Amino acid sequence: MGKVGFKPGTLIYPLPAVMVSCGDIDGEKNILTVAWTGTICSDPAMCYISVRKERYSHHLIEASREFVINLTTQKLAYATDWCGVKSGRDFDKFKEMKLTAERGQIVKAPLIGESPLNIECRVTEVKELGSHDMFLAEVVAIDAEESLIDKGTGAFQLNHAQPLAYSHGRYYGLGERLGGFGFSVKKK
Amino acid sequence: MGKVGFKPGTLIYPLPAVMVSCGDIDGEKNILTVAWTGTICSDPAMCYISVRKERYSHHLIEASREFVINLTTQKLAYATDWCGVKSGRDFDKFKEMKLTAERGQIVKAPLIGESPLNIECRVTEVKELGSHDMFLAEVVAIDAEESLIDKGTGAFQLNHAQPLAYSHGRYYGLGERLGGFGFSVKKK
Repeated sequence: MGKVGFKPGTLIYPLPAVMVSCGDIDGEKNILTVAWTGTICSDPAMCYISVRKERYSHHLIEASREFVINLTTQKLAYATDWCGVKSGRDFDKFKEMKLTAERGQIVKAPLIGESPLNIECRVTEVKELGSHDMFLAEVVAIDAEESLIDKGTGAFQLNHAQPLAYSHGRYYGLGERLGGFGFSVKKK
Repeated sequence: MGKVGFKPGTLIYPLPAVMVSCGDIDGEKNILTVAWTGTICSDPAMCYISVRKERYSHHLIEASREFVINLTTQKLAYATDWCGVKSGRDFDKFKEMKLTAERGQIVKAPLIGESPLNIECRVTEVKELGSHDMFLAEVVAIDAEESLIDKGTGAFQLNHAQPLAYSHGRYYGLGERLGGFGFSVKKK
């Protein structure tokens, strides 16, 4: 075992590959795929997405200061990849990928109906960092697929939706389940 | 299919569960596990970690303005979980988990030798968001496990290290490989 020095790069993985929907459900709308996303605060619940200025959705998010993070699944892998490669300048991505634009509880941006979980977000700050602008946002509502709620316990079972992960250039399903948070200190 | 409204929460998954090492390799040092981490800019390469003020490592990172993100693997799942549950107030986590503190190229914070990839970071800004402070940072160096470099192509094969993912309270290995970035538009 030994270590080799690399120059600085973006190598934190695995990440979620989420479809971000933006714009107005009754007007211009788009979907972009990002892996530069995550939770930044638990209370209040806050998250971020980082988006290149030249991406078509950038101005939609900047103008409305809203977006929706739509979690993805193995079944949505093709649409997730396609929405990351193609531009809203050239395609109606909802139509091309046969995705359903649904009305959110709070934001005007559409939800993607086929996603198991939609996170409605309102931008609190835009940070220009270089290649990417970081949109910091507060979570204002969540819409969850009803069939993933355990009828007995009432618990939401996100992992039953076969979540999609992105790691160093490749998409993966989740594999072996290795334990729950705190398993290392649980009494047998 | 139907959607149910949840109150705002932190539900972006799957995420990396990384061990963050901080402090000074020649002095006080610690490891904490975080999933609130990710890439925020590609050029310059920038990332973040969000840490509760009451966590023991918070003051170490605030004082030195440096930390190292150590990627984790299925083999490191136990140590990853343990370092997320226990406090550096009570334990020398390197010693307890038999992890090796190695010298970085640039930062004084130790690398974890057993990690396949160490990302050396220098804090550029601290944002107080509520329960968590967000440390925005520039990547200043990367240290990669030599045995993961393909001898033929020279490519770094992070996914050969069996990366660890964290999704909605559980740790997972990666599973089925579903295609590379751009697979949806590749000519057959």
